[in-house]
Parts: sequence; structure tokens; C-alpha cells
Amino acid sequence: MLGRLYENQKCSAARTLELVGERWSLLILRDAMFRHSTRFSQFQKSLGVATNILAKRLEGFVAGGIMERRQSTASGEQAEYVLTDKGRELKPVVIALTEWGDKWVERGPVEFLSATDGQRVELKLRRVGDDTEVAIDDVFARLR
Amino acid sequence: MLGRLYENQKCSAARTLELVGERWSLLILRDAMFRHSTRFSQFQKSLGVATNILAKRLEGFVAGGIMERRQSTASGEQAEYVLTDKGRELKPVVIALTEWGDKWVERGPVEFLSATDGQRVELKLRRVGDDTEVAIDDVFARLR
Repeated sequence: MLGRLYENQKCSAARTLELVGERWSLLILRDAMFRHSTRFSQFQKSLGVATNILAKRLEGFVAGGIMERRQSTASGEQAEYVLTDKGRELKPVVIALTEWGDKWVERGPVEFLSATDGQRVELKLRRVGDDTEVAIDDVFARLR
Repeated sequence: MLGRLYENQKCSAARTLELVGERWSLLILRDAMFRHSTRFSQFQKSLGVATNILAKRLEGFVAGGIMERRQSTASGEQAEYVLTDKGRELKPVVIALTEWGDKWVERGPVEFLSATDGQRVELKLRRVGDDTEVAIDDVFARLR
């Protein structure tokens, strides 16, 4: 966690980045969301991230309510880090990053599908009222 | 830019984070997208970020094709940093971060609207085929 690094920013994106905006954070969460990694050694192997950084990130996620640490009852087994609802709901952030990279950097190896019927899934900007699609350039932000 | 920090990650989210994953990057882009900031002094005033970091981030965005630097023709005027199409298409990333923070940290001061008709805008996970909504827990990732 960054703590209140963006303290002077009254903004929900800043609040979110204080929890998941450090180097490696979102890739650790990606592994938890989409590769079903739960153990320290799985994250470490998949990411090749320094163990001290990984430990700090996982602790931060637990402190932030994004993951739950479950100590295994079997002796010698590593604890598991399991996404909470709060953590799983970061999926759209990871999907938005992936879609942009696919389009603007290079097409990556992964696609997102519905487990129910295998159809491809994508993020869309929609009007809340009539559920019609909104173009990127038509979206603006306003103080409530 | 992080360069190839996440080099061993064959993943579009990692590619995107190499361009926009540093501290302050996404908040600078938020200001460009939604506060119409274009000048160094505007970003600096809004964010309170150290000038050396801000300069590095803006340079990185220009190098990465996310912003275009336009030198003013008027003498004494600061150059402007203007989002390219590539940069503007990061809006869903900022919106996803904001929506999550609104729900899970605290409701922020900003809402997203359509400029066409003022309706509130949100991100939705949709099936590409039949455009039906997909629940967060129904989405999984697969190698293409």
C-alpha cells in the first residue's frame, strides 16, 4: 500500500491507486484473479518478483481487505492468499489495462471469456439510463 | 515509463503498466482526460507532484505516444501536452479505478457523464456475441 501518498487528491481513482498502484501490485492481483495463484511460491514463480516486494504487497492486500490470508492446517503447507469480494471486483481494472495493451502495444496471449457459455467478454462504456453505448470522447467528469 | 520492468510477463496488462504504471502516471492522465490540463503548471498545481517526477512522466508519455507535445507559438507560453487517441483510450482504466474506489473505499466527488445527453456512464462487462452482461465471477482468462 502507498498509504496516503495521494492525500491531497480528493478522487476515488487516487484512493484505489493507494491500495493497488505500486509496482507489481496489479500483476499480483492478475495472477490471483486469472491464474488462481494463492501461495507465495506461485506468485513468485509466475512473476519473478523479489521476495521482499512480494511479501510487502501481499501484506498490503491483506491490510487493505483485498486478500484474506488463510493459514493451512496441514503442517509444512504455505499460507494461502485468497481474493475477497473487494479484491475480485478489481477485475475490470485488469481487463481495461489488458484491452488497451492488446490494442495499442501488442496483442497479448490472453482473452477473457464467460465461464457460463464461453463467449468473449469485453468492457463497454454504457449509459446507466438506457444502457446505450458511449464513445470514449463523449465521456466527461463532473463534480456530483 | 518503466521500460521493460515486466519483461518476463507475456501479458498486455504488463505492457500497459510499463507505460502508465509509475506513481502519479494515472493521475496525470486523469487530469489530462477529465480536467483538461495541458500545461506543466496546471498538472503541477492540481497534483502537487515534484517537478522532476512530473517532467519525467510527461516525457515518458510523449515517448510512448500517449501525449503529444505542442510548443506554443506565442513567446513565454508553456508547451502543451495533449492526449493522443492512444492516450484518450486509457479512459476506461481511470474510470474502472474510480468506480472501484467509489464502491470500496469512499464515494468520491466525481461522476462520469455522456456529453451528448448528460446521462451517467459506467463500465460494464459484456459478452461480445449477444451483448449481455457478465458477472465479475463469471469472467475467466484463457490463452488464445
